[in-house]
Amino acid sequence: MAKIAVLGYGVVGSGTAEVLQKSKKSLEQKAGQELEVKYILDLRDFPDSPFKDKFTKDFNVILGDDEIDIVVEVIGGIHPSYDYVKAALLRGKSVVTSNKELVAVKGAELLKIAHEKNVNFFFEASVGGGIPIIRPLHQCLTADKIIGIAGILNGTTNYILTKMIRDNMAFDDALSTAQKLGYAERDPSADIEGADACRKICILASLAFGKHIYPESVYTEGITKITPEDVEYCENFGGSIKLIGWAQKLDNGKTAIMVCPAFIREESQLAGVNDVFNAILVNGDTTGDVVFYGKGAGKFPTAGAVVADVVAAAKMHSSSSTLYWEDCGTQDFVEDKDNIVLAHYIRVSGADKADIEKVFGEVRYLVRANADAGELAFITEPISEKDCDSGIAKLGGKLLGNIRILDY
Amino acid sequence: MAKIAVLGYGVVGSGTAEVLQKSKKSLEQKAGQELEVKYILDLRDFPDSPFKDKFTKDFNVILGDDEIDIVVEVIGGIHPSYDYVKAALLRGKSVVTSNKELVAVKGAELLKIAHEKNVNFFFEASVGGGIPIIRPLHQCLTADKIIGIAGILNGTTNYILTKMIRDNMAFDDALSTAQKLGYAERDPSADIEGADACRKICILASLAFGKHIYPESVYTEGITKITPEDVEYCENFGGSIKLIGWAQKLDNGKTAIMVCPAFIREESQLAGVNDVFNAILVNGDTTGDVVFYGKGAGKFPTAGAVVADVVAAAKMHSSSSTLYWEDCGTQDFVEDKDNIVLAHYIRVSGADKADIEKVFGEVRYLVRANADAGELAFITEPISEKDCDSGIAKLGGKLLGNIRILDY
Repeated sequence: MAKIAVLGYGVVGSGTAEVLQKSKKSLEQKAGQELEVKYILDLRDFPDSPFKDKFTKDFNVILGDDEIDIVVEVIGGIHPSYDYVKAALLRGKSVVTSNKELVAVKGAELLKIAHEKNVNFFFEASVGGGIPIIRPLHQCLTADKIIGIAGILNGTTNYILTKMIRDNMAFDDALSTAQKLGYAERDPSADIEGADACRKICILASLAFGKHIYPESVYTEGITKITPEDVEYCENFGGSIKLIGWAQKLDNGKTAIMVCPAFIREESQLAGVNDVFNAILVNGDTTGDVVFYGKGAGKFPTAGAVVADVVAAAKMHSSSSTLYWEDCGTQDFVEDKDNIVLAHYIRVSGADKADIEKVFGEVRYLVRANADAGELAFITEPISEKDCDSGIAKLGGKLLGNIRILDY
Repeated sequence: MAKIAVLGYGVVGSGTAEVLQKSKKSLEQKAGQELEVKYILDLRDFPDSPFKDKFTKDFNVILGDDEIDIVVEVIGGIHPSYDYVKAALLRGKSVVTSNKELVAVKGAELLKIAHEKNVNFFFEASVGGGIPIIRPLHQCLTADKIIGIAGILNGTTNYILTKMIRDNMAFDDALSTAQKLGYAERDPSADIEGADACRKICILASLAFGKHIYPESVYTEGITKITPEDVEYCENFGGSIKLIGWAQKLDNGKTAIMVCPAFIREESQLAGVNDVFNAILVNGDTTGDVVFYGKGAGKFPTAGAVVADVVAAAKMHSSSSTLYWEDCGTQDFVEDKDNIVLAHYIRVSGADKADIEKVFGEVRYLVRANADAGELAFITEPISEKDCDSGIAKLGGKLLGNIRILDY
């Protein structure tokens, strides 16, 4: 018998309790033992909940109860989640979380405690919602040295970009549509500025390469500057604009990692990923490209991933998974953004072709119908961020757009 | 320390030995122990192989050596693979295989022996080559009741269809191109007649639904009758023709399962899967649609999946995975093909619209440039196989094409 405490009765927490109840029999069969939710922690009252007898407002009741084997943390954010999760692990309880911020910021420390205490810290739901990615990356691509990862990791921004592409909407209109449909929050900044995608690529890269990469080490650019004009030029280029979190092992041993909007060629498996869907491409030296696709969020997809981790934790009672990465004490192994080399799409007004070619050499010009007079858009050869920025400064004129080209 | 014997030194076997050697250190770290290939079984001589000291021609040497914990079977086919695998499991050795025929025909029996002996029978490489699918289906979608599975499971046929669609090739020309490139075998029948895809959907459906479905219970239709005209009509329909292995839980509790060429709508995640790539869509009641995409075959992708299973088997030493399905003694739970209800694309000559509508009710006509006089193509409403067949018989005229429409 594994007894479970769920911290937080919001969307994912209530979904987790529901799934654990609804599928109790089949889950217990898979876990090889009974599974019982003993506590739900929430400061609010839920007098009408079917779980009303299980609620507590005091985390210490859970912490001090040695019957509790597994703590599910679905509060989100760092405080108080971090203190709760750390305390639970130190008391020899396994923890399952969907909290990407916690894993991205505190993952290495929490994994270390879990290993020392011979329990597990699982977080399948923290990336890609219901898409299985953490476990496949860890257990199935075992024989691979992972070379690169690139993902559409945020459903909100992907929905907004899809609206901009399909319905020619401007960014602000697409954002309000997303908000009306509940796909974007009232304060959408963590999504549209890229912070959410950044946390997720940090988790994936840390797991794939074995060293914790912290969000503050990752250059992160959101989608707020993308215009309908950029969308039109991208179509002429033969691709789609997507917000991509990506990480790549470089020949110099360092890791290039970034979150940025990018032109993705139409043939890419990432180009056809629309609306709120997510997809993650993993490139391994043995297996080549593998792509995982599905709903990246939502109550039940996320709860399903949490519950799968609960079952795994119950099965692994008193043994620790090899799921692990370490904090190296430095972030020196992360490549300086200035040195990252990519082709760029650049849109300017007030510069002429002679200027452009003098600065950027051979470029490919893109066209769109009814372009403003004096506007030019072009694709550079691969160029370092530093040279690209200084090239743009040299160009003169007005910079209207600068979007990277990614080749996944 | 886990000692390993590899049965068969063909493409996958040699790849497996190479990967185990090349990545020895990182694999041992992941397995938590040393991994050593002690024997390779092959009737041929390989005097120049780097593994030349490990070869044996006598399976009994391997069977009788109690140091051998894990046997990798990559011979293929049923004989002698079945006898070897069964004997190894009965002797308390775990077995890893890439042999889809063996798993599709003998899976339930071999899983039962593995469980009784407290060892493992793993076969990630048997479906989708390097694409992680068996383990995610089993371990990650734990919280889901799987409702449906549909996959492009055979790279050879997908390559041929891609050539027919992109380059307007006829089937025979596309097949010879595939043969020239080594994508199709000299005797391509197992691929083009659908038997290979049938074995794979049997494995996936058996795992997803817990009861062994045998290949002979599955209606299987290959791609040999697909014509360039069908491809043109499908384009007008707004989709692509793909060879799909699919299985679906029905409301009556039975399982509908089939391998057939099908029109897939352009928006489907399966429509953009081209060339030799495979993709598998899984629909679960909690997670919704999840798609796994990658190279479905090839020396190193397949060997990588085998090696990941070897590591998993080494880690699980003396405990048995819950990966399991049973032989129910009957196949009554497989829905009769006659009762399966789908929309169909039908192409006829010598029938007129009045005849068609009298027999099939409301239909949607498709067009193509320069259609032969007297040719008509249309999409029916969903209709049972039995009614579709009898409708076609009633129609008169000549049946030129009959392809199912799948809605994944």
